[in-house]
Amino acid sequence: MLSLLVLHGPNLNLLGRREPGVYGLLTLDDINTALRSQAERLNAQLEIFQSNHEGTLVDRIQASLDLHQGILINPGAYTHTSVAIRDAISAVALPTVEVHLSNIHQRETFRHHSYIAPVAVGQICGFGADSYRLGLDALVTQLRRQPDKPV
Amino acid sequence: MLSLLVLHGPNLNLLGRREPGVYGLLTLDDINTALRSQAERLNAQLEIFQSNHEGTLVDRIQASLDLHQGILINPGAYTHTSVAIRDAISAVALPTVEVHLSNIHQRETFRHHSYIAPVAVGQICGFGADSYRLGLDALVTQLRRQPDKPV
Amino acid sequence: MLSLLVLHGPNLNLLGRREPGVYGLLTLDDINTALRSQAERLNAQLEIFQSNHEGTLVDRIQASLDLHQGILINPGAYTHTSVAIRDAISAVALPTVEVHLSNIHQRETFRHHSYIAPVAVGQICGFGADSYRLGLDALVTQLRRQPDKPV
Amino acid sequence: MLSLLVLHGPNLNLLGRREPGVYGLLTLDDINTALRSQAERLNAQLEIFQSNHEGTLVDRIQASLDLHQGILINPGAYTHTSVAIRDAISAVALPTVEVHLSNIHQRETFRHHSYIAPVAVGQICGFGADSYRLGLDALVTQLRRQPDKPV
Amino acid sequence: MLSLLVLHGPNLNLLGRREPGVYGLLTLDDINTALRSQAERLNAQLEIFQSNHEGTLVDRIQASLDLHQGILINPGAYTHTSVAIRDAISAVALPTVEVHLSNIHQRETFRHHSYIAPVAVGQICGFGADSYRLGLDALVTQLRRQPDKPV
Amino acid sequence: MLSLLVLHGPNLNLLGRREPGVYGLLTLDDINTALRSQAERLNAQLEIFQSNHEGTLVDRIQASLDLHQGILINPGAYTHTSVAIRDAISAVALPTVEVHLSNIHQRETFRHHSYIAPVAVGQICGFGADSYRLGLDALVTQLRRQPDKPV
Amino acid sequence: MLSLLVLHGPNLNLLGRREPGVYGLLTLDDINTALRSQAERLNAQLEIFQSNHEGTLVDRIQASLDLHQGILINPGAYTHTSVAIRDAISAVALPTVEVHLSNIHQRETFRHHSYIAPVAVGQICGFGADSYRLGLDALVTQLRRQPDKPV
Amino acid sequence: MLSLLVLHGPNLNLLGRREPGVYGLLTLDDINTALRSQAERLNAQLEIFQSNHEGTLVDRIQASLDLHQGILINPGAYTHTSVAIRDAISAVALPTVEVHLSNIHQRETFRHHSYIAPVAVGQICGFGADSYRLGLDALVTQLRRQPDKPV
Amino acid sequence: MLSLLVLHGPNLNLLGRREPGVYGLLTLDDINTALRSQAERLNAQLEIFQSNHEGTLVDRIQASLDLHQGILINPGAYTHTSVAIRDAISAVALPTVEVHLSNIHQRETFRHHSYIAPVAVGQICGFGADSYRLGLDALVTQLRRQPDKPV
Amino acid sequence: MLSLLVLHGPNLNLLGRREPGVYGLLTLDDINTALRSQAERLNAQLEIFQSNHEGTLVDRIQASLDLHQGILINPGAYTHTSVAIRDAISAVALPTVEVHLSNIHQRETFRHHSYIAPVAVGQICGFGADSYRLGLDALVTQLRRQPDKPV
Amino acid sequence: MLSLLVLHGPNLNLLGRREPGVYGLLTLDDINTALRSQAERLNAQLEIFQSNHEGTLVDRIQASLDLHQGILINPGAYTHTSVAIRDAISAVALPTVEVHLSNIHQRETFRHHSYIAPVAVGQICGFGADSYRLGLDALVTQLRRQPDKPV
Amino acid sequence: MLSLLVLHGPNLNLLGRREPGVYGLLTLDDINTALRSQAERLNAQLEIFQSNHEGTLVDRIQASLDLHQGILINPGAYTHTSVAIRDAISAVALPTVEVHLSNIHQRETFRHHSYIAPVAVGQICGFGADSYRLGLDALVTQLRRQPDKPV
Repeated sequence: MLSLLVLHGPNLNLLGRREPGVYGLLTLDDINTALRSQAERLNAQLEIFQSNHEGTLVDRIQASLDLHQGILINPGAYTHTSVAIRDAISAVALPTVEVHLSNIHQRETFRHHSYIAPVAVGQICGFGADSYRLGLDALVTQLRRQPDKPV
Repeated sequence: MLSLLVLHGPNLNLLGRREPGVYGLLTLDDINTALRSQAERLNAQLEIFQSNHEGTLVDRIQASLDLHQGILINPGAYTHTSVAIRDAISAVALPTVEVHLSNIHQRETFRHHSYIAPVAVGQICGFGADSYRLGLDALVTQLRRQPDKPV
Repeated sequence: MLSLLVLHGPNLNLLGRREPGVYGLLTLDDINTALRSQAERLNAQLEIFQSNHEGTLVDRIQASLDLHQGILINPGAYTHTSVAIRDAISAVALPTVEVHLSNIHQRETFRHHSYIAPVAVGQICGFGADSYRLGLDALVTQLRRQPDKPV
Repeated sequence: MLSLLVLHGPNLNLLGRREPGVYGLLTLDDINTALRSQAERLNAQLEIFQSNHEGTLVDRIQASLDLHQGILINPGAYTHTSVAIRDAISAVALPTVEVHLSNIHQRETFRHHSYIAPVAVGQICGFGADSYRLGLDALVTQLRRQPDKPV
Repeated sequence: MLSLLVLHGPNLNLLGRREPGVYGLLTLDDINTALRSQAERLNAQLEIFQSNHEGTLVDRIQASLDLHQGILINPGAYTHTSVAIRDAISAVALPTVEVHLSNIHQRETFRHHSYIAPVAVGQICGFGADSYRLGLDALVTQLRRQPDKPV
Repeated sequence: MLSLLVLHGPNLNLLGRREPGVYGLLTLDDINTALRSQAERLNAQLEIFQSNHEGTLVDRIQASLDLHQGILINPGAYTHTSVAIRDAISAVALPTVEVHLSNIHQRETFRHHSYIAPVAVGQICGFGADSYRLGLDALVTQLRRQPDKPV
Repeated sequence: MLSLLVLHGPNLNLLGRREPGVYGLLTLDDINTALRSQAERLNAQLEIFQSNHEGTLVDRIQASLDLHQGILINPGAYTHTSVAIRDAISAVALPTVEVHLSNIHQRETFRHHSYIAPVAVGQICGFGADSYRLGLDALVTQLRRQPDKPV
Repeated sequence: MLSLLVLHGPNLNLLGRREPGVYGLLTLDDINTALRSQAERLNAQLEIFQSNHEGTLVDRIQASLDLHQGILINPGAYTHTSVAIRDAISAVALPTVEVHLSNIHQRETFRHHSYIAPVAVGQICGFGADSYRLGLDALVTQLRRQPDKPV
Repeated sequence: MLSLLVLHGPNLNLLGRREPGVYGLLTLDDINTALRSQAERLNAQLEIFQSNHEGTLVDRIQASLDLHQGILINPGAYTHTSVAIRDAISAVALPTVEVHLSNIHQRETFRHHSYIAPVAVGQICGFGADSYRLGLDALVTQLRRQPDKPV
Repeated sequence: MLSLLVLHGPNLNLLGRREPGVYGLLTLDDINTALRSQAERLNAQLEIFQSNHEGTLVDRIQASLDLHQGILINPGAYTHTSVAIRDAISAVALPTVEVHLSNIHQRETFRHHSYIAPVAVGQICGFGADSYRLGLDALVTQLRRQPDKPV
Repeated sequence: MLSLLVLHGPNLNLLGRREPGVYGLLTLDDINTALRSQAERLNAQLEIFQSNHEGTLVDRIQASLDLHQGILINPGAYTHTSVAIRDAISAVALPTVEVHLSNIHQRETFRHHSYIAPVAVGQICGFGADSYRLGLDALVTQLRRQPDKPV
Repeated sequence: MLSLLVLHGPNLNLLGRREPGVYGLLTLDDINTALRSQAERLNAQLEIFQSNHEGTLVDRIQASLDLHQGILINPGAYTHTSVAIRDAISAVALPTVEVHLSNIHQRETFRHHSYIAPVAVGQICGFGADSYRLGLDALVTQLRRQPDKPV
């Protein structure tokens, strides 16, 4: 059975309570509940964690080393500013999928660049809460396929 | 029943025959077959088309206007150079999902920028042939959800 | 009697059918009809052609060499990406007037630069379908004046 | 009957007397005379003004507020440096057409950018004295059409 | 016996007929005739093709896969704008030599950069029609040497 | 009989002794011997000179003024940093061909720019020692053709 | 009675104890005492908080959601690097005033840019401890005026 | 008693009459009246002056040399283009406070940079007419504190 | 006898009265007196004019057209911002020498660029009031030499 | 006896356990043990601290104010993003030596810039764990020499 | 009696023999002879030296330390590339005047920047051989004035 | 016994004699003497060489090929401009340590970039003469460790 770490970055705890026009009506709890159901169907278990603290996110990524086989992360604002999270992902070397609720390419220029993407397997953005569902799907597929690799 | 246009840009006809280390072993036919099966399960039908010609891709996007409800596109090299394809998508105003086999953020700098992304619903990259499957899933979900919009 | 080539670039065939807020309600046929009437009054005849294909536009510019005395072009999206069309205009060396429906300086930054303008006689933008009328006027005036040149 | 303000920016008073190779043989008086005739035919009256002073141009734009329905301006060198003229046009909110004698895209790089264009209806450049004629035509057409707007 | 593909990009069909001061007096036929004679002396055969269409050039590069052992290309204007041609060359992985009639480093800044050069064996520019002769020489030498490689 | 100056820039004296993977197995002596044989066949004589000193290369270019009719130069690292060598070539105004062993467009970004190319007839790069042979060929062809110029 | 959050960013706890030449002699306690007196006069109450931790500042901004009507913030070094704080302010959507002790436009270039300013009501910098007093004044005035809005 | 110069730059004379959505409903006279009352309470007297002319603003700054002890300036559009006003402030060396009605960091990029800020004591922006009140407060506080300096 | 126009740009009227550490102790009158004596020795007469107004400087340059044979100008702050003064000099086409008291290359980056220099004969900076003396010397020498031109 | 603070930034706690090819086989404990032995020989005592939290590192730098005479820091990923750590070092004004295990100039471009270096005494990078030993040596030497300063 | 070093950089030995259209007809000997006469009149003696070698110019600048009181230098091409010559001038700390024959602001962009100017007293360019005469005048005036400094 | 080459770049021969505030009071001889003693203790011998000539430094690096096992270099000004020295180090492929007396990150921007660092083992800067001592220590440690490599 796969064990995965799901990380939500800064301000995602406000989801569903603020700016529904931008981020939708679902709360983070709604998303987490949906992710857990989906994981169950995929025979995987999730550790889910949200933090507004860059260092805490780094700590959790490091701690996943012997506990999990992959990471699903929405780094939020740290996408654009955190080399530390990038280095942590790079160090633990677990397959990581980066997701975003909004289409970052339609927003301010500074949101077009991601420090995380070059060390992730792939990136999914723009589908609202659905980005998480697709990301979990992608991550599990990736992990299950790895032995007979090339796609 | 949903009708969708699937567009493959330049050089994707070579898939599976060249550079398997980068793009995997599946051919474009393999991908298309998988997409059709998936579409059937999702109660959608696909028109699939590949071209190396920017103008031909523009023609097909325009022609989708009264035929389809959404577009799934891997614009290949034209991602980074075609304002014409962007304008066509923008003009027909059909929900469009952009996918890439490789993680474009790990490649040459000129591949980090997409002219298409700002007019697409969202972008998925880095999961090999799986990017298509996730993209079709995202597109159908998006189209089915639209009436009761915000996510 | 003057013979002129009128070229419409990519997506202009959709005119009047899509995005009327941006491009107005007139169709390309409306514009062409108006241009032909105007040309008649100016004792000029027009060959009018639209294409979404960069190469086809290049072909037509080359083919104008022994047929026409001037070119009126709205290069659409290729304004910003086509060195090939620029080189074709430069090679046939026919007086060319560049027009745009919208004011390209009020749109995305990448639309502020034109590869065509430096090889054109002049540029007119922002007046909707009227940009064509003014452009044809400018082109004919320019061609009729040329013998006693400097203005 | 339409009342319009025609503004000539710095150094345009030298027209026809200096650098005929670049700017043609017509003097500013020749141009003004032609503009007045054209205006008469179009049932419009013109107030024409030239100044080398940025502040004076700003004053005149402000003063047009209750006197005129539109502005035809060749901002000359201030095209590239004056935020004050831009703000004045923006504040009086009269439809404004920007014209240039020379094709600014064929000259030094610093002349490619216009502070005025984004607040103007449109821009016409490269047709010598004819740019003024086309500009007046465009402005009047624009003003007469406005009630039933979109084009 | 070596079989090689010779590709001429956009506007090169006008060679010798337009702008002789820049590109010389030889026509494309003259150049092709000379290339065929040279190829014969080198015991190689040529397929020669010119197109103004980016997509068509991509098609032909792909089609060379089982027909030719190397490519001699003057990408013309597409040198500076086509990622699709670059990707096609990269995909077929045939040794490719890039040539230019003019010295691209003496022309406009946007002509200094080549998307093709990084995937070519080498680049030759500035020697007029002679660039083709040198390029064919270089390509054949390169292909004949390959077994005992390093130079 | 033509007399030509062949200049090898800094570190080229190490050729064949260091980094054969990058620069091949031939020594500078091997290259010079081959160039002399080729020159003999072309009825030309060569003065060959290598230096690690920018100033010495400038001295030799100046000294070629009444001795030689053309220059073949591999400026090595000074390609990217020496305005002095550029000015010397420009001052003596002898036809100069620039060659590089490696494909400079595949290396670090700072090697993509050449101060020499804009004052050279043309540039050849990427063919290993063969770049010299092609360059000598190009230079002699250029010099022999000059009377009846345009190509 | 208004309730406001006052946030001091990293290193501001050292105020008055280090670098008095740059930041003055007042300690953060002095500033806070003055702010409380001023607030009392303005019939407002303050929650004041300092942290060197980006995440903690984000936490506090979020926590202000149902507690306060406005925020006065000196983001210190995070002004120039924190998208997370910007997003938090944007999410809670409370009127926020940004203050700085020093004139950030007279310091290193990287201090000229603020991630916070575009989501703040306004910015005040350069007046030492007085920037706080002016900022509180501005914030209260802004909040009291809001019903009858436009100024 | 303090004597201060209040300078309003170009287009500020239109305040309250144009674009109330951006600049509020108060006229410049309203602002000046409020400033004079405030000055009286602060035991200061004001000379107030508005001009659309860069040179006139420079003249007035110079003339303040022996008349005033400080300057309150809203340089308007000249904020972003006038080195002359900067040099005048620098030359008279009177403490100067820069104010803006709107939050310049939320507007076009070219409005983010101020030539004046580096020679001012500080900058206040974004509070509508209140920016002036805060600026006068800041200036007087600054001038009264100066003898016993460090803050 | 030569007749020359000497133009002093903005803030130069403060010379000797402000910032002697930067600009020296001489007043503009001192400099003008010295220039007149020097002119007399050189058998030239001077019209000397100072203005803080860009437009006024443009007016005076234009007015020099039939009165003077050359211009000595210290454009002050307008050096870096005025295309209008550049165009005026270019239009009257009188030999112009640009001088600066301070070494502009040791000051802020925005002072390193001059709009005037490319249309001037030459530029002299860094020698305090002596820059004027050298500039007048250079201008007169240049004008006297012109018949037998090349230096 | 000297007392020094040794700070290890984010992800350095993983040393020796991950990516030995890049960072070597030594663990952070190995490095700390070696540093303590070296410190003893140098008659200094060390407080050693690692954190993944930017704010915590700022706290510790501040807390060193009355406890230590110098700081040895490997800021890890925060080297490139933390103005807060820079300001903390600047505020406590203790001599600080910056070290890096890897040669940051051979890695991604964003790692070439350090916010810390301009406020440090010096920087040592590229020698693996040895960078720490050299850094401690440099720091102690610097502190012991300070009284008789200049070197 | 003043003793001065006059340094001519690379390619200046060709003066008068090459490119008279650009650099005039005078040889370096002519210039040197004129400089010596001028020096005599100014009661100064000159050591004059030309070299194409950057290192040799550095050597001579260093050697001037106890021999000369000032330096007149035309660094030629090294103006734009030599930090070593800049550092040498900075190290010997002798007043240095930089001259150029041509107006470097009218030439290629890379010639607009000087590494030398920021460490020189001033710069003179554009007056042909006269730049040297003015430079020597400026240098001697500067040296004679220094005791009673400020100008 | 190790044999090492110590190279001092341009202007370092002036050490201790000029600008002691920046570079300290020690002469190059003092540094060399200290290095020799240190080398003796480390059982290594040194060849020490200083030159102001880029080409001479290249020559010496090349000559070290069969004589030395490592290089300690302070490239001085050539750090920022010499691709030739970089290429020489790269060609001889001897472990090289780069040192600087001053902290190059606190000086002019053009000194922040090193062409040498990417081909060196590591870089040490900012410790005055001590940078050499640390560099020699680092180099010897590096060379002695190499057999059992990874650190």
